[in-house]
Amino acid sequence: MKNLQPLIYVLLLSVLCLAEARIRHYRWEVKYEFKSPDCYRKLVITINGRSPGPTIRAQQGDTVIVDLKNSLLTENVAIHWHGIRQIGSPWADGTEGVSQCPILPGDTFRYMFVVDRVKNTKSVILLTTSLFSEFVDFYASMFLFEFVIINAGTYLYHAHYGMQREAGLYGSIRVALPTGEAEPFSYDYDRSIILNDWYHKSTYEQAAGLSSIPFVWVGDPQSLLIQGRGRFNCSTPGIATGFCNATNPECSPYVFTVVPGKTYRLRIGSLTALAALSFEIEGHNMTVVEADGHYVEPFVVNNLFIYSGETYSVLITANQDPSRNYWTVTKMVSRNNTTPNGLAIFNYYPNHPTKSPPTVPPSGPFWNDIEARVNQSLAIKSHPNYIHPVPQTSDRVIILLNTQNRINGSVKWSINNVSFTLPHTPYLVSLKENLLHTFEQAPPPDVINGYDNYDINAVAPNVNATSSNSLYRLKFNTTVDIILQNANTLNVNNSETHPWHLHGHDFWVVGYGRGKFNVSEDPKRYNLVNPIMKNTVPVHPYGWTALRFIADNPGVWAFHCHIESHFFMGMGAVFEEGIDKVANLPSSIMGCGDSKRFVKP
Amino acid sequence: MKNLQPLIYVLLLSVLCLAEARIRHYRWEVKYEFKSPDCYRKLVITINGRSPGPTIRAQQGDTVIVDLKNSLLTENVAIHWHGIRQIGSPWADGTEGVSQCPILPGDTFRYMFVVDRVKNTKSVILLTTSLFSEFVDFYASMFLFEFVIINAGTYLYHAHYGMQREAGLYGSIRVALPTGEAEPFSYDYDRSIILNDWYHKSTYEQAAGLSSIPFVWVGDPQSLLIQGRGRFNCSTPGIATGFCNATNPECSPYVFTVVPGKTYRLRIGSLTALAALSFEIEGHNMTVVEADGHYVEPFVVNNLFIYSGETYSVLITANQDPSRNYWTVTKMVSRNNTTPNGLAIFNYYPNHPTKSPPTVPPSGPFWNDIEARVNQSLAIKSHPNYIHPVPQTSDRVIILLNTQNRINGSVKWSINNVSFTLPHTPYLVSLKENLLHTFEQAPPPDVINGYDNYDINAVAPNVNATSSNSLYRLKFNTTVDIILQNANTLNVNNSETHPWHLHGHDFWVVGYGRGKFNVSEDPKRYNLVNPIMKNTVPVHPYGWTALRFIADNPGVWAFHCHIESHFFMGMGAVFEEGIDKVANLPSSIMGCGDSKRFVKP
Repeated sequence: MKNLQPLIYVLLLSVLCLAEARIRHYRWEVKYEFKSPDCYRKLVITINGRSPGPTIRAQQGDTVIVDLKNSLLTENVAIHWHGIRQIGSPWADGTEGVSQCPILPGDTFRYMFVVDRVKNTKSVILLTTSLFSEFVDFYASMFLFEFVIINAGTYLYHAHYGMQREAGLYGSIRVALPTGEAEPFSYDYDRSIILNDWYHKSTYEQAAGLSSIPFVWVGDPQSLLIQGRGRFNCSTPGIATGFCNATNPECSPYVFTVVPGKTYRLRIGSLTALAALSFEIEGHNMTVVEADGHYVEPFVVNNLFIYSGETYSVLITANQDPSRNYWTVTKMVSRNNTTPNGLAIFNYYPNHPTKSPPTVPPSGPFWNDIEARVNQSLAIKSHPNYIHPVPQTSDRVIILLNTQNRINGSVKWSINNVSFTLPHTPYLVSLKENLLHTFEQAPPPDVINGYDNYDINAVAPNVNATSSNSLYRLKFNTTVDIILQNANTLNVNNSETHPWHLHGHDFWVVGYGRGKFNVSEDPKRYNLVNPIMKNTVPVHPYGWTALRFIADNPGVWAFHCHIESHFFMGMGAVFEEGIDKVANLPSSIMGCGDSKRFVKP
Repeated sequence: MKNLQPLIYVLLLSVLCLAEARIRHYRWEVKYEFKSPDCYRKLVITINGRSPGPTIRAQQGDTVIVDLKNSLLTENVAIHWHGIRQIGSPWADGTEGVSQCPILPGDTFRYMFVVDRVKNTKSVILLTTSLFSEFVDFYASMFLFEFVIINAGTYLYHAHYGMQREAGLYGSIRVALPTGEAEPFSYDYDRSIILNDWYHKSTYEQAAGLSSIPFVWVGDPQSLLIQGRGRFNCSTPGIATGFCNATNPECSPYVFTVVPGKTYRLRIGSLTALAALSFEIEGHNMTVVEADGHYVEPFVVNNLFIYSGETYSVLITANQDPSRNYWTVTKMVSRNNTTPNGLAIFNYYPNHPTKSPPTVPPSGPFWNDIEARVNQSLAIKSHPNYIHPVPQTSDRVIILLNTQNRINGSVKWSINNVSFTLPHTPYLVSLKENLLHTFEQAPPPDVINGYDNYDINAVAPNVNATSSNSLYRLKFNTTVDIILQNANTLNVNNSETHPWHLHGHDFWVVGYGRGKFNVSEDPKRYNLVNPIMKNTVPVHPYGWTALRFIADNPGVWAFHCHIESHFFMGMGAVFEEGIDKVANLPSSIMGCGDSKRFVKP
């Protein structure tokens, strides 16, 4: 049976023989290993022994194949390709409970990406899909054929099941333009890093605490990682002996080596569990040129604010005194916190890479300087040569008011008084196969009852909050506005920053505001000229953020706060659009809940 | 759909209306919770908030229904009904990789037991099976209908997936005789306890260490539990702060309250991860009357040796000075160890239950007194009125020599140079549906190559040891002898005790011996008159144990060392017999590996 594989590749190649498209084949094995990314030894989910996992590098038009083997002992897994819109392949989104069943231990799951631009590949995809269906039965342990479309740009991948992302299962996707095409900026070298925060407790312990009555909050992260490396103070009192080793080479700082005079494109992604970050390189300005795969009108910053789920490209020129090294610093902002800053070394060649800079690391912005963060949000506009025209009106406005509530004694996050829970039969299967009993049919409200009188500055009155796995059904091809409305938490005078990530779409960011969104006045000030398109955007404390997107991607798409614990506690929603236009689902995504009986022999 | 449930119960009842058979319906939810069974807080897998889980109490003829909901976040589960032979229902054995796929998070799995004697229930089972198949499609989330046959006696249940048993997922099954039938001994009260050992590291950490190169051994358990309660010394140096609380009521000692002059039947099961135990009640003899569900010729002990997977009933008469309490002690034996003894209180009513006995707890036998343990093994014979006649000859002899080896740098246990690994498609499905590519077809050897010259007192020469998921195929209805042959570990002058557990069968224990089994001489000394039947038996250091069973139960059955880490490291085997006689498999056990495509719509 496996003998057919080469044949299939040949067929695929011949179908994809648009110019010199290449196949890049990755074989990944996922398992638990002991690692000490911040000098403290704990179990980490690795890919081929690494966390972060391998960077996927491709050029538009390439085909990426990832054979993912789950070698966890008793735990399932699913990987989301963050920023990939999955046009025509909604089953490939990698979101457990939404687009697929989880991958069982021992199974090898085949992910396949066609790395190309939308306009070129739609027909190819349909062709290869039908071609492949002929061969599906011949595959013993390889279930899913994924067709994923990416624009050139910076993307991420990470586990989208339980809280596994936090256990270290994440990495970068870097897609280059086709040969001969140019970016609207120039640089000498291209680098990728991922920023993260890091807990010493296992994700199981964290999740059990969040579900407990009384609620046990996970607290601040123990450290901040830069490309998987941080530094915890092993002398901290109360640590069990034998767990922390400051001399472990795994926690030596990340080194970014530069040649004097050269300009670097640094692709920065954040996959923090909790932290909003400020990132800076001592003494060096950064020019922001890309956000979430879209070119921005360049602007210069001293420090970059970046939220979990966001990616940016910045240009940095090594134009400072080359006789020394410099600090690279990440700092947790937006929450008053005890997490020490993360440090890496910006190393001018030929200085020794581990030579400590002679200066005190920059202390970064104040954690509570909301204005600076809002100003950066407002500064991000589309590059003038790459504007995707935004529809000037919308067909539907959904105001998502987030509140913290207690439901049956548990602390939850709610949207319009509904705390989101995932069903165990993926929505995509339930909706396509009409298994409507698997989730609650009454949709959540487009606006909370009593919105006009709702006081966002007060602790939620906590009336009628419920848990539900209901979803929003959108009319196909309509334009939808989403207003993220922030409010107070369960603590007096406290509102948090939430980075919201939409699957299956890029959206236009048409406005930010303070206080409560005014339905009749605020839309008049939307930026409908050159708004940036993104897939992840923050809503600032006590503020609102307005997004617009076209519901033109048949499928079922999660939309949620990218803070791992917040989504776990219910801070999410799901949109369905054009389910009738979704092609036949591959059996490979089924096998859990009620989808079990739809697996075809 | 669920509305049909009551109807089905009524139908079931009418089918089962042999006298006054009752239905005992349990609803269990499995999840992680923080518990402090020995004062040290860690995550425990609980059933309805408890570990050990609820005791299943039934009378022969009753029907037990367990609706098991998996509320773990990302982890599957499977529960084995230890000691239950599953005659006619091999798919109900609860052994991941052998008899079923694991139960996914969110799924509710229905286990159903008909608690009766073999001779009475076979026809009932077939009838109810066919009746139930009509209704299978109506069940949304309840997949498996199990028909389990039990003799009156003492059994156990526990997770049989990864190392989840050690995480706390276990409990007792107690089956009483039908009304009007009498045991061959008398007592006033009936009690059940489970003995266990307890680690502070998670099973994930333990498993990762066992798989690491270099090998990281889990070490000695931190404490011994009696009915889920133990006591770790919170002043132990090097413990992280905040984890240990000596005043936590969860770790107050277990209290066994007795009325002076009364006689108690105490059912004792061991589900230790590692420890062989000695159990005693200060100043009280115990009369052993049952082993693994079979009546033994009563004998009196001061202390009872009990190995993981074994159950015993002992009679204890409260005939000592009633003005004080007494210690109940478990002690780890067979390994030189650092684990403190486990303590409980044997409380004479009306003394206060927590009143400490005025004496120093008995120190128990020496850990290395092998002779005492062998003598107890030899003392266990069938009760003369309950002898199951043993076949006087056997058709096949399989000598299972256990060695410790290094395979590709990893430390493993091997049987005849084969370190056992589980496939991810359950054998039962593979064999019944002819998916023979899912495991290695060449069977493991009946005797190791060069057995005659093998030196069991030396470290294994470690030649040709391999990992394999191959199995033994037994001719149906033949009589098979298994010789468990112990040998040296990788450490010089070291041989361990291994309790071997056979699924799907009780076997006759026909002999124990020291040194190397002599194929021509030793069988002459077998006890073929009144051997006990058991499902779990130890092989002592540098010794052998001979078992005999009839391969008359169509199905696929695991046979393995019941030490959790040893089975994980390969110390196991699997037997197939009469696969052609197995009825159509329920879809409910499928859904993993290649069995996925056999789930029927």
